[in-house]
This record gives sequence, structure tokens and C-alpha cells, in this order.
Amino acid sequence: PSGRVEGGQLDVWTLFNNLTAQHKAINLGQGFMGFPAPQFVKDAGSAAVQDETCTQYAPPRGKPELRNELAKNYSAFFGRTINPDTEIVVAAGGNEGLLCVFAAFMNPGDEAILMEPAFDQYTMNLKMISGVPKFVPLKTRPGVDPAQEVLTADDWVLDIAALRAQITPRTKVLVVNTPHNPIGKVFSTAELTEIAAVAQEFNLVVLSDEVYDRLTYEGKPHVSIATLPGMWERTVVSCSAGKAFGVTGWRIGWMIGAEALITPCLRAHTRYVFTVNSPMQVGIAHAFQQAAQNDFFARQRGEYLARRDRFMRALDRTGLAYTIPHGSYFVLVNTGRIRIPVGYTFPPEIADRDPCYKMGYFFTKEIGVTGIPTTEFYSETNSPLGQDYIRFAFCKPDDVLDAAAERLLRVK
Amino acid sequence: PSGRVEGGQLDVWTLFNNLTAQHKAINLGQGFMGFPAPQFVKDAGSAAVQDETCTQYAPPRGKPELRNELAKNYSAFFGRTINPDTEIVVAAGGNEGLLCVFAAFMNPGDEAILMEPAFDQYTMNLKMISGVPKFVPLKTRPGVDPAQEVLTADDWVLDIAALRAQITPRTKVLVVNTPHNPIGKVFSTAELTEIAAVAQEFNLVVLSDEVYDRLTYEGKPHVSIATLPGMWERTVVSCSAGKAFGVTGWRIGWMIGAEALITPCLRAHTRYVFTVNSPMQVGIAHAFQQAAQNDFFARQRGEYLARRDRFMRALDRTGLAYTIPHGSYFVLVNTGRIRIPVGYTFPPEIADRDPCYKMGYFFTKEIGVTGIPTTEFYSETNSPLGQDYIRFAFCKPDDVLDAAAERLLRVK
Ligand SMILES: CSCCC(=O)C(=O)O
Ligand SMILES: CSCCC(=O)C(=O)O
Repeated sequence: PSGRVEGGQLDVWTLFNNLTAQHKAINLGQGFMGFPAPQFVKDAGSAAVQDETCTQYAPPRGKPELRNELAKNYSAFFGRTINPDTEIVVAAGGNEGLLCVFAAFMNPGDEAILMEPAFDQYTMNLKMISGVPKFVPLKTRPGVDPAQEVLTADDWVLDIAALRAQITPRTKVLVVNTPHNPIGKVFSTAELTEIAAVAQEFNLVVLSDEVYDRLTYEGKPHVSIATLPGMWERTVVSCSAGKAFGVTGWRIGWMIGAEALITPCLRAHTRYVFTVNSPMQVGIAHAFQQAAQNDFFARQRGEYLARRDRFMRALDRTGLAYTIPHGSYFVLVNTGRIRIPVGYTFPPEIADRDPCYKMGYFFTKEIGVTGIPTTEFYSETNSPLGQDYIRFAFCKPDDVLDAAAERLLRVK
Repeated sequence: PSGRVEGGQLDVWTLFNNLTAQHKAINLGQGFMGFPAPQFVKDAGSAAVQDETCTQYAPPRGKPELRNELAKNYSAFFGRTINPDTEIVVAAGGNEGLLCVFAAFMNPGDEAILMEPAFDQYTMNLKMISGVPKFVPLKTRPGVDPAQEVLTADDWVLDIAALRAQITPRTKVLVVNTPHNPIGKVFSTAELTEIAAVAQEFNLVVLSDEVYDRLTYEGKPHVSIATLPGMWERTVVSCSAGKAFGVTGWRIGWMIGAEALITPCLRAHTRYVFTVNSPMQVGIAHAFQQAAQNDFFARQRGEYLARRDRFMRALDRTGLAYTIPHGSYFVLVNTGRIRIPVGYTFPPEIADRDPCYKMGYFFTKEIGVTGIPTTEFYSETNSPLGQDYIRFAFCKPDDVLDAAAERLLRVK
């Protein structure tokens, strides 16, 4: 095997899904919806499967039906006219979009800046292109004690000086992720402006992962760094239908950006996977049309807000400290006060992992609720920063959240 | 942009699809079906879209429903028991399977042997992993004149000495493609045995692209090199639902091989695209079940054979020499006797291309039938070998084949 496929055999998602099944835990680990997908979305998808214009290869750039809908939506979002024929590429999931941006702008050995905790697929994608991740931590504000206090996502901040310090002549890409997985932080215009200034000063391409763009709470508006002055020319935004419409299994994503940036991304995409499944593309195009008519995104946001609050109330009863997310469907829970009994034994796949993985296993097996150990989102050198956190996903129906709440009381 | 995305902006497929539309030509270029997909396949797909077990992420390895059906099918095909949990990975199209095999076994600068003409995505995939293609030509037998005679795919042969001569210490992967695109050659057991001996001698991984495995004619049996003695341990087979069921737009493929080979491929796949769209996977699983009951593959083979023969009879009337394919849905036509008028002008995207591209353009614009210029499937140094051929796809309904036949008479 090659160097790029070395390392842990099982990805964290499969590992904890397997453990969950084995121990009959409640799965708040991987971020998939525990409730049915919207009927109008499924109907749009199944109609597209029957549609003879969807049985054969889509153009590598994507089906025009979908690109046209995306252009409409994002032209409104971004406040500029987006050209569906030159400024959008459909990807095989948001993740393939990320991969293509790295591949398009980084030669082997080039560096990308990640703000950790950082969704682990960034690092995995970078391994595949022989790219080097450089990490800058998002840290809780000095003076707050995350093991004792409930924080808000705004309490996690980027140290801009630390960001600058990580930039070298080989730095090509700066990854921004807002709303942020796993913190749930929605970056403010002020914060993005500071980041944008660094990208401009060092001539970096910004990969803006905005897959949770439609899931923000408490009136925190999602702002795309692509819309800040001078940033359209250097930003590729990556988004996902799985998150927008609750169908993570459909694997439809898209990249949006200026033609000069999108053209190399299209070339990478074509050379990687050639094209994306046609019926799901057209299904999502029709889902967008109907969403506009039935105010779907506002309704969906309200539902997720209610789930978030229900889960936070459950956490309040456990006495565990956590971070209130302003976006996404994740909550970081601080486990610093929980002690695993001395002599507790772990199965082989966990025994040689860090304390956070062990805590994750303990939650699955003993508490009966699965989360994702947050060290997975940290560089090895910085993983102590993440070791006191487990990420829980609240994109689940009320009865699942309530059952999880019940079990989480076991930590008391 | 990075080195891996340098080169021609438009892939050959999109280029000739665009030219076809512009000149209202008949499209026998890219290999997509011109007739409706089988109704039972579409029904299986649309039912899966409505199935709540298909709305969320599939495991990176693939939905168990599909892996179980594949294991049944290929256990029978390969004459050995294939384990669905360790020896199969579902890919985002046959092409992503190819990419993962290259990525799993080649470090940057490592070499893969391709037999040219070679499907151009091999070279594109290799660019993405900084791998180096080394080419060995399949040549027409000495003594035959391909511009004058109708050949059969068996007249194209591999020079095993030339193959050995291309192997270096950096050679890691040997690509076998049977049935072969674009020649339509079905490699015999004797030929594969010779190739297998080389793979064993030099300890190479064989990537066996068998996407046309169910489309063979004249009783030429498809043989997988994976089934030859000693080869299971070093072969990964890549296949495609798009070709098997006439739904190239669904982008479902699979890799099959020994666990020690499949595990690194799974890791590459997970780190590239994470997972594949769930409903199309389950749709294909159910399509396989029904295909077994309604003898679909035998019927389909008969239909393709009739299309092949219909198209060959049309070619006979033109006087053009061609190669009779024993598999796939392509025919290589020799254009050596056609002269483009002196002073004929080409559009900018063609003007600086090789004579074969120009002939391709001439066919689209003046004859009104699009094929793919075969130099696309050759290395630059060897492209003269391909310059006299245009590849036509016959996976089209009778009326399209007949209309193309009519227009092809213009070459007389
Ligand atoms: C790579 S799988 C999951 C992506 C996501 O939704 C998550 O962070 O859970
Ligand atoms: C990369 S597109 C087409 C693949 C195929 O079917 C062909 O060779 O035409």
C-alpha cells in the first residue's frame, strides 16, 4: 500500500457506528438525520430516477437543472449574480468538493491551514493529495472554565497572530468552516474580515466549507467569506444537499466561486470521479424549487432549533458543561469531570487510543449514548486541547433525544 | 492551480458532446445509452429513494444489500466464495474504483503500465495521484492492413516482450482492460495467463477494469485475470452498474479483490469521497435480484449483439474498414482513406489538435456523426498509432443507428 492510505484502518465514523450497534447505544455520533427525509425531497428524487433525461452521464460540471437552481439561490444569498455555466460545479458530496479544491490549488508538499478542531475529512483529503495540514487552534476565551460553565460558540475564538505565524511560502489554502463543525460557531463578519485580510496579505485561496449554511440559530446570520470585499476572487465555497435537505445519503454537493478558481476545480473533479449521479442532482434541483415555495428552510431551521434546545435542556439536567451551538447540529460536551473507573478495560481497537477515544467508548458502552471523540478533529500535537470533549449530534427525533437524555443522567 | 490540473481545459467527452449539439450531429461519441433504461432498474431505483433506510450515509464500504448481491454474482462468476464484508467496496462509479486502486498502491512518481489504446481516465486518474503512466501498445498483427481490411478484435495483440521492457523498479500497477475499450477485444485465457506471469514475476498489483464484463459477443467468454492461478492475491477488479444495467448516470461501481488489497482501496475511497449515494446502491442491489429472475443479462447481450451487427452492416456499406468488437459497445473505424479537403478550417479548440481530433471534428461537422478521436487513448509519443481511428459507440436505438448509417454513406 501507498503512504497516503497508511494509518488507522477504520475511520472514526464507522468505528463508532459499529460500537453503537454492538452495545445497542443511542447514536448521536455521525451527523445523520434520525427522522424521515422530507417527503417532497424523496418524491423529487424518485421522479428523477424515472426521468429518462437522468439515466445517463451528467456533464462533469453538473446537470444544468441543478446549476440553474443553485445560481438562483446563491445569487440571492451572496448578493451577486452567479453564472451557472462558469461559477458552479456539482460534486459527489460536499466532501468531494473539498477534495477538489485542495487538489486544484496544492502541489504535493504544499500546506493548508486548518482551524482546529477541524472536521477530520480535511486531513484525510490532504493525505490523498500529499498536502500538509498546518493547524491553528480555536480556543475558549481566557478566563472561562469549559469544564464548569456552559459556553456559547462565540466563546471559541481564533488567535489571528497564531494564524499568521503558521503561514509559510508553501501555504496555498486557508480553510474556513462556518457554521463550524464541531463547535457550532457561526463566524461574525468582523471575524471573517480579519481572516480575509490574512488571506489577501498572503495570497491564499480560501476554501470555505459552508455545508451547514442553512442551519443557524438565535438570529446569528450565516455570512460567507466569499461576499467580503476582494474575497470573491480567492474563495471557493463548498456546500451540501445532504445537510440542506436532510439526505446525507444522496451525496450531492457543489463548489461555487469565480470562474478562474472553479475551472481548475472542475478539472480536478473530472479527473477524480468524472461526474456525479444524475437523478439525485435533478431531484435536488426540484427540491430547491419546492423549498422556495413552501418556505422549507425557515421551517427546517425552526425544527432544528427546537431539537437543539431540547437536547441542551437534557444536558442541563446532567450537570455536564457544554457549548451552545449557533449553527450546525452538533453540541460539544465537556467530559472533564467524568472519571472512568480505574482498571476499566477497553477492547483492542480502543485500548491504544487517546483518553478522549476512551471516553467516547465509555459513553457508548456504559452511558449508552454515542458521541464522537473530539481529539479526532485535532492534530496529534494539539489533541490534548480536544481531549475533554465529546461531540453529540442532535439531528434526531424527539423520542431519541429524550431517550438519550434519560441515559445521559447516568453520568451524574 | 496545481500541476495535477494542468492541461486541456475540456475533457474529450464534453468537447465532442458540445460539438455534437452545435452541429446537430448524431452522437456515437461518449458511451451512453441512447435507449431507455430498463423499467425494472428504474423502478428499483425510485423505490430505494423512497426507502428510509436509503436517505442517510451508507457505510464507506457500501450498503450491505448491494455487497451481498455482488458477492453472490461474482462468487458464481469467479468460481470462488467472495466475502461481502471484506472483499468488496462500492465506488462512486467504476471510475472512482480505478482511482482508488491507483491511489492505494502507488506513491507519487510510481509507475502504472497501460496498454494503449487505453481509456483516457486512467491517465487522468494517474495525474491526480502524481503517478506515471507507462504505455505498451496493442498492435494489429503484422501483415494485416487495417485501412483496407475488416479486422477482428483478436487481430490486436499485446507484445509481451514490450510489456516486460516497460517495467522498472517503480512499476507498481499493471492495468488490464477486458473487454477492452476502445478495441472491443476480449482477452483470452492464454493471453491473460501470459500477462499474469509478468505480474507475478515483477510483483505487480493488477487493476483489472472489467466494466464491460456482461457485454461479450460470438461466444467469446469474459475471463477475469483474477481467476487465474495465483492472481486473486494481486488483482483488484473494477466494475460498473452503469454498464451492466444501462444507467451510466447512476455512478455506482465496485472493487473486488482479496482483503489485503481491498482494505487499502477502502481507505483511499473513504478519504476521497467517504461514501457513495445510498439509494442508487440499493436500487442496483434489487436490480441484480430481478436480473437473476428475468434472465436480463442474456437478453441484454442479445440486444447489444443485434445493435453491433446492425452498425457493422452500415459500416460495410460505407466501405470503411473497422475492427469487429467481441465485447463492449464500441467499434474502431479506420479513417485512413478519408481525406479532409485542403484548406478546410477548424475552430480554435480543434485547430491545434492532432490530425485524429481534426478527423473527429470533420465527422461531427461534415458527416454528421460524432465519434471519439482515438489518439485520446494514446500516449503523446505513440499517438500516431491511433491517428487513423475514430471510435463509435453503438449503444443506441435502431433508428439512431440507421440514421447514422445513412449519414456515414457521405464518406464514400
Ligand atoms: C464523514 S461523515 C460525517 C460528516 C458529518 O456529518 C459529521 O461530522 O458527522
Ligand atoms: C469518461 S466518459 C465515458 C466512459 C465511456 O463510457 C466511454 O469510453 O465512452
